[in-house]
Amino acid sequence: MKSFLFKGRSKKVGLPPGTPEYIGKRRVVKTKITFVSYNEQDYQEKEIKSIEELVLSENKPKVTWINVDGVHEVEILKKISEYFGLHPLVLEDIMDTNQRPKIEDFGDYIYLVLKMLYYTDKSDEVIIEQLSLVLGSNFVVSFQERRGDVLDPVRDRIRNSRGLVRKRGSDYLAYSLIDSIVDNYFLILEKLGDNIEDLEDELVASPRTETLQQLHKLKRHMVFLRKSVWPLREVISRLERERSKLIMESSVIYLRDVYDHTIQVIDAIETFRDILSGMLDIYLSSISNRMNEVMKVLTIISTIFMPLTLVAGIYGMNFRFMSELESLWGYPVVLFCMLVISILMLIYFRKKKWL
Amino acid sequence: MKSFLFKGRSKKVGLPPGTPEYIGKRRVVKTKITFVSYNEQDYQEKEIKSIEELVLSENKPKVTWINVDGVHEVEILKKISEYFGLHPLVLEDIMDTNQRPKIEDFGDYIYLVLKMLYYTDKSDEVIIEQLSLVLGSNFVVSFQERRGDVLDPVRDRIRNSRGLVRKRGSDYLAYSLIDSIVDNYFLILEKLGDNIEDLEDELVASPRTETLQQLHKLKRHMVFLRKSVWPLREVISRLERERSKLIMESSVIYLRDVYDHTIQVIDAIETFRDILSGMLDIYLSSISNRMNEVMKVLTIISTIFMPLTLVAGIYGMNFRFMSELESLWGYPVVLFCMLVISILMLIYFRKKKWL
Amino acid sequence: MKSFLFKGRSKKVGLPPGTPEYIGKRRVVKTKITFVSYNEQDYQEKEIKSIEELVLSENKPKVTWINVDGVHEVEILKKISEYFGLHPLVLEDIMDTNQRPKIEDFGDYIYLVLKMLYYTDKSDEVIIEQLSLVLGSNFVVSFQERRGDVLDPVRDRIRNSRGLVRKRGSDYLAYSLIDSIVDNYFLILEKLGDNIEDLEDELVASPRTETLQQLHKLKRHMVFLRKSVWPLREVISRLERERSKLIMESSVIYLRDVYDHTIQVIDAIETFRDILSGMLDIYLSSISNRMNEVMKVLTIISTIFMPLTLVAGIYGMNFRFMSELESLWGYPVVLFCMLVISILMLIYFRKKKWL
Amino acid sequence: MKSFLFKGRSKKVGLPPGTPEYIGKRRVVKTKITFVSYNEQDYQEKEIKSIEELVLSENKPKVTWINVDGVHEVEILKKISEYFGLHPLVLEDIMDTNQRPKIEDFGDYIYLVLKMLYYTDKSDEVIIEQLSLVLGSNFVVSFQERRGDVLDPVRDRIRNSRGLVRKRGSDYLAYSLIDSIVDNYFLILEKLGDNIEDLEDELVASPRTETLQQLHKLKRHMVFLRKSVWPLREVISRLERERSKLIMESSVIYLRDVYDHTIQVIDAIETFRDILSGMLDIYLSSISNRMNEVMKVLTIISTIFMPLTLVAGIYGMNFRFMSELESLWGYPVVLFCMLVISILMLIYFRKKKWL
Amino acid sequence: MKSFLFKGRSKKVGLPPGTPEYIGKRRVVKTKITFVSYNEQDYQEKEIKSIEELVLSENKPKVTWINVDGVHEVEILKKISEYFGLHPLVLEDIMDTNQRPKIEDFGDYIYLVLKMLYYTDKSDEVIIEQLSLVLGSNFVVSFQERRGDVLDPVRDRIRNSRGLVRKRGSDYLAYSLIDSIVDNYFLILEKLGDNIEDLEDELVASPRTETLQQLHKLKRHMVFLRKSVWPLREVISRLERERSKLIMESSVIYLRDVYDHTIQVIDAIETFRDILSGMLDIYLSSISNRMNEVMKVLTIISTIFMPLTLVAGIYGMNFRFMSELESLWGYPVVLFCMLVISILMLIYFRKKKWL
Repeated sequence: MKSFLFKGRSKKVGLPPGTPEYIGKRRVVKTKITFVSYNEQDYQEKEIKSIEELVLSENKPKVTWINVDGVHEVEILKKISEYFGLHPLVLEDIMDTNQRPKIEDFGDYIYLVLKMLYYTDKSDEVIIEQLSLVLGSNFVVSFQERRGDVLDPVRDRIRNSRGLVRKRGSDYLAYSLIDSIVDNYFLILEKLGDNIEDLEDELVASPRTETLQQLHKLKRHMVFLRKSVWPLREVISRLERERSKLIMESSVIYLRDVYDHTIQVIDAIETFRDILSGMLDIYLSSISNRMNEVMKVLTIISTIFMPLTLVAGIYGMNFRFMSELESLWGYPVVLFCMLVISILMLIYFRKKKWL
Repeated sequence: MKSFLFKGRSKKVGLPPGTPEYIGKRRVVKTKITFVSYNEQDYQEKEIKSIEELVLSENKPKVTWINVDGVHEVEILKKISEYFGLHPLVLEDIMDTNQRPKIEDFGDYIYLVLKMLYYTDKSDEVIIEQLSLVLGSNFVVSFQERRGDVLDPVRDRIRNSRGLVRKRGSDYLAYSLIDSIVDNYFLILEKLGDNIEDLEDELVASPRTETLQQLHKLKRHMVFLRKSVWPLREVISRLERERSKLIMESSVIYLRDVYDHTIQVIDAIETFRDILSGMLDIYLSSISNRMNEVMKVLTIISTIFMPLTLVAGIYGMNFRFMSELESLWGYPVVLFCMLVISILMLIYFRKKKWL
Repeated sequence: MKSFLFKGRSKKVGLPPGTPEYIGKRRVVKTKITFVSYNEQDYQEKEIKSIEELVLSENKPKVTWINVDGVHEVEILKKISEYFGLHPLVLEDIMDTNQRPKIEDFGDYIYLVLKMLYYTDKSDEVIIEQLSLVLGSNFVVSFQERRGDVLDPVRDRIRNSRGLVRKRGSDYLAYSLIDSIVDNYFLILEKLGDNIEDLEDELVASPRTETLQQLHKLKRHMVFLRKSVWPLREVISRLERERSKLIMESSVIYLRDVYDHTIQVIDAIETFRDILSGMLDIYLSSISNRMNEVMKVLTIISTIFMPLTLVAGIYGMNFRFMSELESLWGYPVVLFCMLVISILMLIYFRKKKWL
Repeated sequence: MKSFLFKGRSKKVGLPPGTPEYIGKRRVVKTKITFVSYNEQDYQEKEIKSIEELVLSENKPKVTWINVDGVHEVEILKKISEYFGLHPLVLEDIMDTNQRPKIEDFGDYIYLVLKMLYYTDKSDEVIIEQLSLVLGSNFVVSFQERRGDVLDPVRDRIRNSRGLVRKRGSDYLAYSLIDSIVDNYFLILEKLGDNIEDLEDELVASPRTETLQQLHKLKRHMVFLRKSVWPLREVISRLERERSKLIMESSVIYLRDVYDHTIQVIDAIETFRDILSGMLDIYLSSISNRMNEVMKVLTIISTIFMPLTLVAGIYGMNFRFMSELESLWGYPVVLFCMLVISILMLIYFRKKKWL
Repeated sequence: MKSFLFKGRSKKVGLPPGTPEYIGKRRVVKTKITFVSYNEQDYQEKEIKSIEELVLSENKPKVTWINVDGVHEVEILKKISEYFGLHPLVLEDIMDTNQRPKIEDFGDYIYLVLKMLYYTDKSDEVIIEQLSLVLGSNFVVSFQERRGDVLDPVRDRIRNSRGLVRKRGSDYLAYSLIDSIVDNYFLILEKLGDNIEDLEDELVASPRTETLQQLHKLKRHMVFLRKSVWPLREVISRLERERSKLIMESSVIYLRDVYDHTIQVIDAIETFRDILSGMLDIYLSSISNRMNEVMKVLTIISTIFMPLTLVAGIYGMNFRFMSELESLWGYPVVLFCMLVISILMLIYFRKKKWL
């Protein structure tokens, strides 16, 4: 995750502002453009090769949704951007996948940047992809870094005329897309929540060095999630507050709903951070505790055997005049003394609660 | 507690917004609807099976309180929601028990989400349940996750006409319910405060590994309590400030009172957090201190016995020409020297304050 | 201090709001009511048994100050509260000693909650008591938990007509009382500051486990002081800003003065917290340092004696053919070698700066 | 980096405000003034010796950009400042390289202070240099501490008429310069990001004391970067918000773009700080872990060899009556017992998971 | 520094507000009053014994600056305060040297409290002294705790008519005094910055216990500096924003300049705090590292010598039947084995990177 922090930004240094240039992970796939157009009665969906095929139906009040998968081919994006009359800076931002979530109102259209999250089971990574939305009076254009499935439920609902989406305008479509994305965050959080629980059980049962490393991995995930979701709150709040003429009154309550969800996501991230901090404390004190255990064993062993060894050493001295050595009972008495010393020591340690 | 973080949210991904779907712990109990209707003179209370039985008395100025225990049966809730003309998003929120406390003013009615806390003695857990309130001009509908006893005092007061509740409107009833819930928080805090005191005594007397685990359990409780109570402050403050036409002037002072109580709860939670942090510090430094003790014992033992063992070793050497060995006083002199060395060492350690 | 966190609050759960019920430490003393009435010329002071004795002199412009020591007897307080026409919630708050400092403006009177601090030398505790003030157009009623001496200077000044208090109205009297209380905070802070200094000297000279415990005691004092003083700032600021008709223009500058003092107190508490945190750091690193010392002694001892013991052991072996043993100089040479080894080791440790 | 904190500020103490005096690193290079003048058709560039050579073309609407490398020669700067009618305090600020980024609007011109960052590969240092901008209605004057290459791309774009810069006024030129500087930040961040990644790999593979030192070096870099970039956010935001008559409407969107970039830079710095904190935690717990390892080895060794040594010591005693010593199998049996003891110990440690 | 926290405040408890009483360090020096009066042409300076000597020249537009060194003599200050018509609370504040920086606008005059810092080389202490300023329409009165040299540059500039001070009014004089004080902060910060650098070098070279103590001393300095400078920011900002009629339009830009300097000072203090925190981390981990070193030495020594001692012990046993003992090569073979064991151990430790 970290490795892509601003990688590729350097290409742009020195270029005039508004120069479109792809900044992000290497992509080889072809850009794919899907066109969906609908109103309450009609519905049309097709894949198009080039934006020239597209004629916005202006006579009938229809909503058009253009979805673009892939933002690395300048020429294609340039044409789309010209077709919809987007500002050069918008095109530049669409191609720069390092954006943070933001909203910009250009009067005729609103430009939104959002982050989509994917969880890959095999490498335990959270992948962050950028989604740009352009909302016009009767169209929505969405730009994704690559083909993803987060927006499919919305497409299904349009296709099957489920929910309100066919009855409302482009603003409701944009809301539906944002809502899909935020809903998807809950999936990721559930996944991470499970990971945290597993880790916690491991921490209590048998903390290992790998436990710590996973703890820090999760912590870092939280850093990046937070970065992706925090600004979204502001984005949706401004969308709701500033009341562009593109947003109908009836959609505001839905925006408030998705805003609440965003707050829930942020809340959960903060809670996870708190829990992970607590777990680090537990880990560290469990290391200290085990060190204590080790030291106690060492001290007990030393304290028992050192005096005994001294006793043995004393009777191993070669003095000519040591009457004990001549005594018949010398050896067993000494062995008995050693036993007594050991037992006394053990009692002492038991009393000190070291055993 | 942690285990229910967003569990079940994934069911909703992809559904159109406004689709009611229960999100929460598995429930098997049947939904129970209680109907209470009163004014200063009359009082009526019954359990109803279905919302069709309910006819709001519109000719006489009466306040009606519908309490619904159980929010997992879609059909029943749908009927209630239609009966009172609630927005589909409200119904959705009622059934999603992961909400954070919030308030939404729909003009004709105000929708509130609150959290109720229960403390279970046997597992030492704090259980968080959601309460949704809908406040209309002459009715209040409350939705609880399951049958609880937090609202009973209000029911008693209505029944016995104690306090002002029978003399006032639905806004005062809603206030009374909120006040009951906040009052209940004090019970939980008292319980947790006792636990903290017990733990503290234990910490001073004999800190063990379990002490740490309980400390962290309490800390986590605080994380969840905070999450439940913090937004409540904003909720009540908005209820008081925004002056919906549903809230009468005379109720505002009561809202201010419950607001003050909420602040007290938040204050206490913050204080508990501070105290728990301090206790963790004490625990950690007591571990360090004990490690120090252990090390000192080891060092004292080693420092006393190692020189003695060397002396014994020296006189155990088999050199032919060691005049001491032949001497009559050799053995007692060596023993005496060993004694002197031990005493000197002990004096040295006493001076170093290790003993 | 901690033990009284919400103790007794549970009694109130379920009671209708506005029900007066004493919440606080057990009290046995009788409530005592003192009545002071004055203007620039006259002065009258007496203890009264019941509020019925009290007739507010309404014809002459006089200021009346009723002081009530003890807030645990419902009946007495109820009568007073009715006499002055206080709202039931105010009476409830007066009897609940868990309030945080707050201000409420009821138009005809202003209700204030403040905290008084006492330092008890013998148990090194800070005791927090609640003072409620009701400020009316020509009267002030003060409610204390028990007889205290913090307000005595004001009484003296009225009696002896020192300062401006006899020349001004009830707002100046209320100000004087608040000022007395804040002045008293400085005494407590001086005391605690002395304790911190003593502790610091101890920490440098010879840190012990008790030092840590006292450190934490002081830290906890700061937590509770902060909780008592922080909201006071807001209280006084609102009193100054909101300009009730009860506050005369000429008193505002005095309120600003006491506000400044409050800020100074808060500043000092924050500084103390910073200092105490720093002291904890010093304590912990001094433990680590001493552990290091202990370990060094152990290592030095082991490193010197283990090789010597080995040498002695080698020449204690019973091999038949060990020519050194037969040599006349064997023994002294070995002793000399041991000496040399010891000296080399000592030089090595000196170089490593362990000695 | 740290070494230059306020070094040289002391020279100014006592001088009247507005006295120009160079404060910064010692400079020996000569001040260099470059003059660029352009409109959509024409373009002129030359190096000038003295400001007297400069005649602003006032009849034709041209934009003039004066770049001054070196701010340590009072006389030269004084002339420039008089030529453009700058306030003495502005001149003072230009020469004081300890400024934090700020903006001041003087009506006729806007004065901006920015920070440029350079990364020097050989010493792994981040160098911070100050850039002052004066934006007038048809001119921009930029003051750099020394010759740098951050502004070159803008000069190139003017020269080759790339982008919009030749078509717009002086406000767009100022924006282009700011944009260049912020773009440059991304380069530095990429570099530091790489360093952090390298360090992280090292930390996992083999943490050494130098790793810690580099960690702290990076942390300190972050402290200084933050100090340089945080106020920039406010600067650009005010430039955008306050709408001086010098800023044309069409430039505002570009300022918003550069504002977004600044937020991205700040975000990245905060993320880096979080990551570095996490790395310190890993480092510390890895030290604790290794200490644990060391202690375990010591304890295992002691626990195995101490009993064996005791056994050997016992049979080394010189008692006359020790029947074992006479036995034919005594020696092998003792050796076998020693083996058994060792193996039992090893099994014990394996069970304790120490091995 | 700490020792003077509120020392002496207790004297005031119980006195009526507005009672002047000196609170601060014991002073024995006599109060000294200097009188400076000037306009663009004239200049007059003299020391006066009593305020009665002073006649403000009211016919000619002159600026008068009264400087009072020593604020412990009530009578003198009372006369001055009456002469200028100051409010009793102002006099009280002037004599209480525990004030925090503040500003109060009384319409006819503005009262300012500032803090001056002195660094004493010999005890490495930062001394904080209070300066009160009263700014009237044509006069400035400054009160210092004792004779200091921070304001001398301003006096020199007036005397020699350097800078603008003679051309402007009393507001510019007040500004000049504030500016002098803030300039002086930079001197202190440079000094402390040097100390921090020295300490850092020491920390890397050879960290000792004293290093830690100095670290904490510097940290505490920062606590006190922060307390003195933070409120100053607000003071100057209000002076600039609230536009009293005493502040001329032309002075506002100068106030903005000194505001910027204050921000720089605050910035530097925060940076120093960050650096000192980082240094504490380094210190603590270097202690841990050294502990690790010590433990390694101990473990290596034990691990090498314990097995050897055992071997020697075994061949020191007195069994009758130990064939090795009779062998001619027994002794050298055993010695050789010991050598091999040692070498193997060393190789093992080298591999573990302990050596």
